[in-house]
Amino acid sequence: MNVEIINIGDELLIGQVINTNAAWMAEQLNLAGFRVYQVTVISDSRQHILHALAEAVQRAEIVLISGGIGPTKDDITKHTLCEYFNSRLVFNEDAYRDVEALFARRGYPVTELNRQQAELPENCTGIPNKLGTARGMWFEQDRPAGGKTIFVSMPGVPFEMKAMLTGYVIPKLKQIYKTPFIFHKTILTQGVGESFLAAQIEAWENALPSNIKLAYLPQPGVVRLRLSGEGLNKAALHLQISSAVLKLQELIPDLIFGYDDETLEMIVGHHLKEKKATLATAESCTGGTIAQLITSVPGSSAYFKGSVVAYSNEIKEQILGVSAESLEKYGAVSKEVVKEMAISMQSRFNVDYAIATSGVSGPDGGTPEKPVGTVWIAIASPGEVVAMHYLFGDSRERNIRRTALQALNLLRKKLVNQG
Amino acid sequence: MNVEIINIGDELLIGQVINTNAAWMAEQLNLAGFRVYQVTVISDSRQHILHALAEAVQRAEIVLISGGIGPTKDDITKHTLCEYFNSRLVFNEDAYRDVEALFARRGYPVTELNRQQAELPENCTGIPNKLGTARGMWFEQDRPAGGKTIFVSMPGVPFEMKAMLTGYVIPKLKQIYKTPFIFHKTILTQGVGESFLAAQIEAWENALPSNIKLAYLPQPGVVRLRLSGEGLNKAALHLQISSAVLKLQELIPDLIFGYDDETLEMIVGHHLKEKKATLATAESCTGGTIAQLITSVPGSSAYFKGSVVAYSNEIKEQILGVSAESLEKYGAVSKEVVKEMAISMQSRFNVDYAIATSGVSGPDGGTPEKPVGTVWIAIASPGEVVAMHYLFGDSRERNIRRTALQALNLLRKKLVNQG
Repeated sequence: MNVEIINIGDELLIGQVINTNAAWMAEQLNLAGFRVYQVTVISDSRQHILHALAEAVQRAEIVLISGGIGPTKDDITKHTLCEYFNSRLVFNEDAYRDVEALFARRGYPVTELNRQQAELPENCTGIPNKLGTARGMWFEQDRPAGGKTIFVSMPGVPFEMKAMLTGYVIPKLKQIYKTPFIFHKTILTQGVGESFLAAQIEAWENALPSNIKLAYLPQPGVVRLRLSGEGLNKAALHLQISSAVLKLQELIPDLIFGYDDETLEMIVGHHLKEKKATLATAESCTGGTIAQLITSVPGSSAYFKGSVVAYSNEIKEQILGVSAESLEKYGAVSKEVVKEMAISMQSRFNVDYAIATSGVSGPDGGTPEKPVGTVWIAIASPGEVVAMHYLFGDSRERNIRRTALQALNLLRKKLVNQG
Repeated sequence: MNVEIINIGDELLIGQVINTNAAWMAEQLNLAGFRVYQVTVISDSRQHILHALAEAVQRAEIVLISGGIGPTKDDITKHTLCEYFNSRLVFNEDAYRDVEALFARRGYPVTELNRQQAELPENCTGIPNKLGTARGMWFEQDRPAGGKTIFVSMPGVPFEMKAMLTGYVIPKLKQIYKTPFIFHKTILTQGVGESFLAAQIEAWENALPSNIKLAYLPQPGVVRLRLSGEGLNKAALHLQISSAVLKLQELIPDLIFGYDDETLEMIVGHHLKEKKATLATAESCTGGTIAQLITSVPGSSAYFKGSVVAYSNEIKEQILGVSAESLEKYGAVSKEVVKEMAISMQSRFNVDYAIATSGVSGPDGGTPEKPVGTVWIAIASPGEVVAMHYLFGDSRERNIRRTALQALNLLRKKLVNQG
């Protein structure tokens, strides 16, 4: 059962508003077993709306429209739908009572513009809107090849659309159509880029059942793998996906850090809490980014004691107690210095774990021996300190981000492996 | 000149990823004088891509495609474009050298999958991609009614697409098509929300010439005002906009911190550099966010010495030297403690200026006297320390962001007013 989403609104076509409605609608429809075939974003223009409807009906059995049904002049969707379905507007008593009740709650009289909101095309079923004046409209049209196409027009205001979609439209669609079960699982990996990951898991990917699809969703420092399965038997589908995930876990245990909506900072926080352990960070090249990520998690003060951002050698010496000799002999970006930073942080902040970073983020500061992208990360855990070397890329922003995520994943592995 | 944007990616149709690319592309195109007629979001499917291209060419003279050109199996855009344009893939030496160079910088060997990234349709012009392995592709096709349609395929990875669109595609389109003069000036304000700002500048807004439009672009902590003028005479247009900006500066001098692509962290850095002054931050509720913002600016090590993130009272006492008495008597979120933090930071890090923050970011930790959103910020400058109190909102993320930006703007005002 194909769905097409049509979002109407000039503001979407000049980039002033990001089309979050489409993503939200698509997610809800997917969870209910409906497949979104296409999203089409068009302007508040009669001609454009008529064209888009005529094209959509070729592609989809269900056309969900949002936007352009407000009370102001630029909102022409209702009149255009009336034209498309050869209908006429009639005053709807029920709709008017809803508008009256809404205005009474807000303490305002009903204006003429808002009275017109109670006029609906004669051949549609009105969909109540508890949160605004614009009713939704449900139309059905016979398809030339048999069957019918359902068109639903909803408000563009996100909270009104959301209430209408989940409260009325999806439940009614599920009564009409028998939908397959759809199940998604997202596997979160850190440590290698998209193409290296693809090479490592190629055989696993090729062995996936044909009803399960894999998508690579890369972000700086993280690659998300999304498995999407479709089937008629819910239990069998879940089993297929779990089994694929288990095999992947065996294949790349070190790269997987979590699932679905988790983040590295959440997972690290979870492990620290469980261990009743504490953390601090000594940051040079990451400039506070790791602390910022960790403290973005609500409740992080339970395990995070703080950070020293040491953006000069003077601070590394005086506040962190790194030896002047090491700084002189090995340079700030070195195994020796990053280890000293981590150990010193552990003792000065009296924590169980400490992360330290030092690197050349760029664009300046690179040398032939230590080019831009060179990074050292140290993790001090109880009784042990390890340091790792990386060579990232040219972009300052991404070097900082990748270093921060790499450091969090190194800490995560330490936390997991030390039971 | 109509543009159609086609975004390819299953992840957009199941709602896992919000289509921010479309909004960004539309905004940039609009700024350059091109009108986006439609945005079409389709799946990684050969049939669907072929259909969408055939339809787009009916509507638009320029078709900009993003997504589906990565190295992995699910990326089929390149092969499908090849089919649509009756072309064949040929190995491109230049493209391969770029891939090699990218991998050499990262210290990895080129895999077979990535070698294939250097194969391009014979009849396209490759567009270099400094940030990834996928080249862009520029095709031209004659229109039945005369003229030609330009198709450009770009990566879906936002930072790769952005660099390619603004660095290559838009400049080249502007060479080909004559667009009206469009001039934009963005005025950056910090300190009051959108609706309060609108009320303060209402008369100014109503007096704007009819060819100049105003858009409010709110972000947490910052409201950007964008003036967009269109005209046939470039000099007259610039004069109109400068005059409007000057009047606004007279109206709200304290709220304006910069223009266009400037950021508070860049402007603060600029002033510090000019004064040859140094800065450090003592952060509690902002958790390193101010340090992260400041160090995101290249060259910030010239004026930024570092930070202490003090996420527990113990650290505030032991590392920052805040008196136990103040912490006990006034609490960590207080004028007294935040001033002590700033003064101590100034002397311990031996800097000219220090910022200190302490607040209740939420969701937990609020009390009737100090509800979630309560924030104290102190600025220590040579011979002086001031502290300010704020009450922000309920969202942890936005409270942190607003505190960080407010602190940077307070520092900026100090730097400007002290000549």
